[in-house]
Amino acid sequence: MPNDQLKEAIEVTNSELVIPPHTNHIGTIFGGRVLELMDMTGAMAAMRFAGEDVVTASMDAVDFKKPIQLGDMIELKAKVIHTARTSMVVKVDLFRLAHADSQKDFSCRGYLVFVAITCDGNPKEVPTLKLVTDDDNKFWAIGERIKQRAKERRIRDADD
Amino acid sequence: MPNDQLKEAIEVTNSELVIPPHTNHIGTIFGGRVLELMDMTGAMAAMRFAGEDVVTASMDAVDFKKPIQLGDMIELKAKVIHTARTSMVVKVDLFRLAHADSQKDFSCRGYLVFVAITCDGNPKEVPTLKLVTDDDNKFWAIGERIKQRAKERRIRDADD
Amino acid sequence: MPNDQLKEAIEVTNSELVIPPHTNHIGTIFGGRVLELMDMTGAMAAMRFAGEDVVTASMDAVDFKKPIQLGDMIELKAKVIHTARTSMVVKVDLFRLAHADSQKDFSCRGYLVFVAITCDGNPKEVPTLKLVTDDDNKFWAIGERIKQRAKERRIRDADD
Amino acid sequence: MPNDQLKEAIEVTNSELVIPPHTNHIGTIFGGRVLELMDMTGAMAAMRFAGEDVVTASMDAVDFKKPIQLGDMIELKAKVIHTARTSMVVKVDLFRLAHADSQKDFSCRGYLVFVAITCDGNPKEVPTLKLVTDDDNKFWAIGERIKQRAKERRIRDADD
Amino acid sequence: MPNDQLKEAIEVTNSELVIPPHTNHIGTIFGGRVLELMDMTGAMAAMRFAGEDVVTASMDAVDFKKPIQLGDMIELKAKVIHTARTSMVVKVDLFRLAHADSQKDFSCRGYLVFVAITCDGNPKEVPTLKLVTDDDNKFWAIGERIKQRAKERRIRDADD
Amino acid sequence: MPNDQLKEAIEVTNSELVIPPHTNHIGTIFGGRVLELMDMTGAMAAMRFAGEDVVTASMDAVDFKKPIQLGDMIELKAKVIHTARTSMVVKVDLFRLAHADSQKDFSCRGYLVFVAITCDGNPKEVPTLKLVTDDDNKFWAIGERIKQRAKERRIRDADD
Repeated sequence: MPNDQLKEAIEVTNSELVIPPHTNHIGTIFGGRVLELMDMTGAMAAMRFAGEDVVTASMDAVDFKKPIQLGDMIELKAKVIHTARTSMVVKVDLFRLAHADSQKDFSCRGYLVFVAITCDGNPKEVPTLKLVTDDDNKFWAIGERIKQRAKERRIRDADD
Repeated sequence: MPNDQLKEAIEVTNSELVIPPHTNHIGTIFGGRVLELMDMTGAMAAMRFAGEDVVTASMDAVDFKKPIQLGDMIELKAKVIHTARTSMVVKVDLFRLAHADSQKDFSCRGYLVFVAITCDGNPKEVPTLKLVTDDDNKFWAIGERIKQRAKERRIRDADD
Repeated sequence: MPNDQLKEAIEVTNSELVIPPHTNHIGTIFGGRVLELMDMTGAMAAMRFAGEDVVTASMDAVDFKKPIQLGDMIELKAKVIHTARTSMVVKVDLFRLAHADSQKDFSCRGYLVFVAITCDGNPKEVPTLKLVTDDDNKFWAIGERIKQRAKERRIRDADD
Repeated sequence: MPNDQLKEAIEVTNSELVIPPHTNHIGTIFGGRVLELMDMTGAMAAMRFAGEDVVTASMDAVDFKKPIQLGDMIELKAKVIHTARTSMVVKVDLFRLAHADSQKDFSCRGYLVFVAITCDGNPKEVPTLKLVTDDDNKFWAIGERIKQRAKERRIRDADD
Repeated sequence: MPNDQLKEAIEVTNSELVIPPHTNHIGTIFGGRVLELMDMTGAMAAMRFAGEDVVTASMDAVDFKKPIQLGDMIELKAKVIHTARTSMVVKVDLFRLAHADSQKDFSCRGYLVFVAITCDGNPKEVPTLKLVTDDDNKFWAIGERIKQRAKERRIRDADD
Repeated sequence: MPNDQLKEAIEVTNSELVIPPHTNHIGTIFGGRVLELMDMTGAMAAMRFAGEDVVTASMDAVDFKKPIQLGDMIELKAKVIHTARTSMVVKVDLFRLAHADSQKDFSCRGYLVFVAITCDGNPKEVPTLKLVTDDDNKFWAIGERIKQRAKERRIRDADD
């Protein structure tokens, strides 16, 4: 699949009911479980875009708003927003639906970088993201910053 | 929430990557795991429609087409298609996305009946489904047959 | 293993304690979890009869009686009741034992069709069920109807 | 439930298919997973005998024979063999059924001591085991030794 | 527990064997599973420092080095490095031990912010971290930057 | 790796938060779950010592003290204490940290025997444990008794 192939991104939706195995002893979902769901949903968006298996290269900072409770529903929406030669930046939004009403609250957003790989684990080229709307352009720029921050972290870590 | 309240149904989407815990020793997903995902996604569609907790009352027959493999993606779409006083019929469609390409194959369909309940477990009235499109009317009629078949099973079982 | 080999069926028993990972936020077991247990126990009955790996081809309708609670015990009993060239119909009965007393309540029954497969996934012939008791003959007839209903569903679905 | 109530023990059977979540990276079931299944099945036998919740007080030594593989079936049989005022000794036998044939191999045996408890966690009296067969008497004597060994361990540990 | 109480931090160690339920279909651990382990180990370090339950407020960016394989061992080390009135910054280091040799490779580092809470979910004061070594001072400064970056993200998000 | 290679043992530490999936319906951890954690932690200590995969050969008797509750933390410490040609005895200590305070209570101790294996499942020689401290010598002697008891059980079982 050549890198100059242009392709639109498909949004992947994932819904989860917060059940006892996802929660701690005080009835709220673990932050780590939320991060796992964001990674899993993001990986599916990247796999569907690349048509290949992917591995997670990095996760940008995530801030948790008010806690999600046992019995709530979660909706995750993931979409590729930026592409490089073998990597993709995926935005994942998480919404909370308190079960007693159907109102959907924005809960948190994460940006993950995935690398497409061949079956023997080597990086593989991905299509280039086709930008259609204004939002596509706005998020491409955010994706650029995500990549830039990751690069700065590599330099900072080498200095440690 | 009075029964004469009319309400449109929201489709709930759920995506899953088929990973080792979902598969048997020959690398295909368990039929039972598929049924569990259909029940869980259907329950969320019913909960969002009723604005209440729900319990599964019955699952209509399900036929599995060709096996879903480790590494495939699954997409489930669930929607309330029929309502009675305290119960809802939910249709759940399951699609398979073989990971090497982005083609979506219809895999199987299930119809589940859920009952809305109060926090102490008693049945609770649900809104009446608002029918908008021709499809809504077609699936309402299917929902009627699902309920009719469930009634016939109760009579048949009482005869056993 | 030739198809004209006659073989009696062995009943497979499975017991489960209903613990938090199996239940929802209101303390009752998920319908989907029950279906998964029925499929798993049924698959073991089919594997022991066929002496081969199996895949689930279909599950007939299941009706859930009163909810099973956290702390209850479940007993499942599965047995092959009908055989064709490569497929088996398995009956699975689920009983509930409320933990405070030893009384066993019938909870629900399911009929599943399994197909025996070779290690590369192709259908494989199974022995023919040997009918010994009156009950064996009664359930063979029920198995015939299960297969007949599955055939009617295939025709109905092709019409959709 | 008075201690002088005599009661026969019911054997609890549990069947499990060895699937990827139960196995390590070399395709054999974890010893710890086997111990967990033995404890769980034993607990159900004790709960059914006592008609109460139970907690595990001790597990006698267990020796594992040849490894159980992915795709094998396991059958566990648990039965109360000895009772004291609030405690029960349960014998749990584990058999392995290699999936390609229906032969059942004895794999290992464990003896567990369970204590019946009230809902607030205090020990509660259990019925006295009714001994009917020669085997019942033989295993009662083994149960005595299990309790004796546990008592010796307490003395030995206090000396450490 | 007054905020002016000075307390040294205890390092919490967690070891995990990478088994099939943690890995994807290509035999490497999920990034999301790694994040979950980091959050869980970090939460235990925060709980032991605060003597209270905690919730995750944010996770700073994490970069994954070369993939961790099925059969590898993971070692996580978590320690509180900074405290404010009700929140703690925890550093979590993850090491990989390829199972064929005992060499320990640094794999990735994460910084999480946890908030101590009362049983009804309100923030609760935590002791102040006692700084003893040069490293304690170095990491306190890093903790300051972690908090500063979280504050900047809140401003940035409000602008979106 | 020749048997006459002398090697010191490394202690492996594992920490777990007791969450709903680990507990029964009365909020205490399952004895079987504790045994599973002890086996898993012990296996990692044996793998790190042998530099090879291992299988569990036996578990010596374990006595559970007062129950561990939902929300408690567990700390396990495992170390090889005795070696033979292909087998190792591992001591595993389990401590409980009630979450409201940082006090660590000794909860139970187990001794497990592991055998190192090649990738095709055959036993493989392990290094000989280097004894450095008085405690090393004391626990080597205990390891001898563990092995002796296992040998006596084999004779006893053959007599049954």
